[in-house]
Amino acid sequence: MQKLRAEIEAQFACHLEEHSFWKHLAKESPAGFRAIRETLLAPGKRVRPLLFCTACRAMGREPVPDLMPVALALELVHSFILIHDDIIDRSDERRGAPTLPKRMDGLFAEKPADGVRGSDFALITGDLLYTLAFESLLQADASDAQRTEAVRLFTRAALDTARGALLEMRAAQTPLAELTTGDIEKIYALKTGSYTFTLPLQLAALFSGDTRGTDFAAVGKSAGIAFQLRNDQDDATDDLRDGRRTWALVCAGLKEAPGSSDMLTAVKKAQEENVRRALALVDSPELSALLKQVLSATV
Amino acid sequence: MQKLRAEIEAQFACHLEEHSFWKHLAKESPAGFRAIRETLLAPGKRVRPLLFCTACRAMGREPVPDLMPVALALELVHSFILIHDDIIDRSDERRGAPTLPKRMDGLFAEKPADGVRGSDFALITGDLLYTLAFESLLQADASDAQRTEAVRLFTRAALDTARGALLEMRAAQTPLAELTTGDIEKIYALKTGSYTFTLPLQLAALFSGDTRGTDFAAVGKSAGIAFQLRNDQDDATDDLRDGRRTWALVCAGLKEAPGSSDMLTAVKKAQEENVRRALALVDSPELSALLKQVLSATV
Repeated sequence: MQKLRAEIEAQFACHLEEHSFWKHLAKESPAGFRAIRETLLAPGKRVRPLLFCTACRAMGREPVPDLMPVALALELVHSFILIHDDIIDRSDERRGAPTLPKRMDGLFAEKPADGVRGSDFALITGDLLYTLAFESLLQADASDAQRTEAVRLFTRAALDTARGALLEMRAAQTPLAELTTGDIEKIYALKTGSYTFTLPLQLAALFSGDTRGTDFAAVGKSAGIAFQLRNDQDDATDDLRDGRRTWALVCAGLKEAPGSSDMLTAVKKAQEENVRRALALVDSPELSALLKQVLSATV
Repeated sequence: MQKLRAEIEAQFACHLEEHSFWKHLAKESPAGFRAIRETLLAPGKRVRPLLFCTACRAMGREPVPDLMPVALALELVHSFILIHDDIIDRSDERRGAPTLPKRMDGLFAEKPADGVRGSDFALITGDLLYTLAFESLLQADASDAQRTEAVRLFTRAALDTARGALLEMRAAQTPLAELTTGDIEKIYALKTGSYTFTLPLQLAALFSGDTRGTDFAAVGKSAGIAFQLRNDQDDATDDLRDGRRTWALVCAGLKEAPGSSDMLTAVKKAQEENVRRALALVDSPELSALLKQVLSATV
């Protein structure tokens, strides 16, 4: 897997080096380009491209080098989502480094631009990474019918992500006591599961010509819930402070202290149940092993 | 043209009525859906779909009904750009009505959501309209090769738009005296010309199988500059107040009062020159007539 991850990193670095858009930007706005580059190349797990490439191999198609543009597209779309999330959450830090809006706030403070904020620059950067994701997808070595279908799968996952994000805002308006863990699971499945798990697996099946008909939407749903439940366990105290509607807090209904043993037991049980459900649907040992690692955050 | 515009409006209304995403949202977040619907259906000129449909006819292909999803995609992408622009410009009003961030600020004030702002809701809505644009594009009655090429043209225009927006932020950091009118023309051509003029015309040629090889990039560049110069004339006083780097203000170099007759004469001359250049490249009388109307803001 280390070799595959190195391939993915190389693809990412090469994209930033060679795409004409970045060449223009490096000339026209060197400090802005540096900030974007540092944000994108901050160490990440590259979960989505890893899943895509591993699934391709499990389905009998070698993804390197022909399908690396698809792997890149998945990482670009993830970067786009993180950057827009950082604007919404007003986060200053991610992956141990300043977020893009934060970096750009610093730059605009040095050389003020009438009314332009770091988050404005980050907003446009997110839009453009999303565009580059679609563009990269079209560069897969595949038929036009496959490429068209890939774009369609991408849009479907992106609609789920947006719906999950809007449901999350709605949940923020709803008193904790009126929310069920089912409401939160729906948000996790839509906002995270669809583009993190379902999409890479569906794309692998598409480009590998795999026709076994595995229910990747169901895998993605359970895996997405399990993935977020893992985060809930780690961040319970911060989430409570920020008023976030997480599964853990809804489950505890604020009756228990965040991080109490009863609450953590419930989250852990639900998490294991969803891991089990996701894995039961996957028949490749390599893919199962990777999913297990991703879902236990040991990838 | 009134009939064509009615077709476009009907397509837009039908999309909002029938797409499963909007059906979900209408149930899950009724007030949010109403705000989006009112924003999208506020009276607009529908310049991009009109240009696309008129160009199709001029090139011998009837766009109604087979290519209406392409017309819709162009209006969706325009709505996405306007909404993200309204966030960046912190605009409260557009088309004589409150902008989406403003509307949502009102809704969140009624029923507060921990830390969620109207601009957060609008940001996700913009992303989702962009996704719906790609999805609609794929529904054109065309071959997979044409659809793939259409997506590619879309991404190219979107990259130009993003580059123009980033150049505009950079210009906001640059003292007015250090900018040339050429710098501003580049921003206008990239940010407005590419997706407003070049893209609809290229898509019309693609789906009509037109092979005359008109230089639509050159048409779009001149038309985009002319289109923005028209706005400069109307908004000179507001632009100065907001510190916007417009052609008019760069040309006058702050030596003249905004709206002075010398400044307006220079803008008018440059505008007419660009209209002339754009029209010289177009050989269809119907399309020329529409472009003239669009560029004189009488459409």
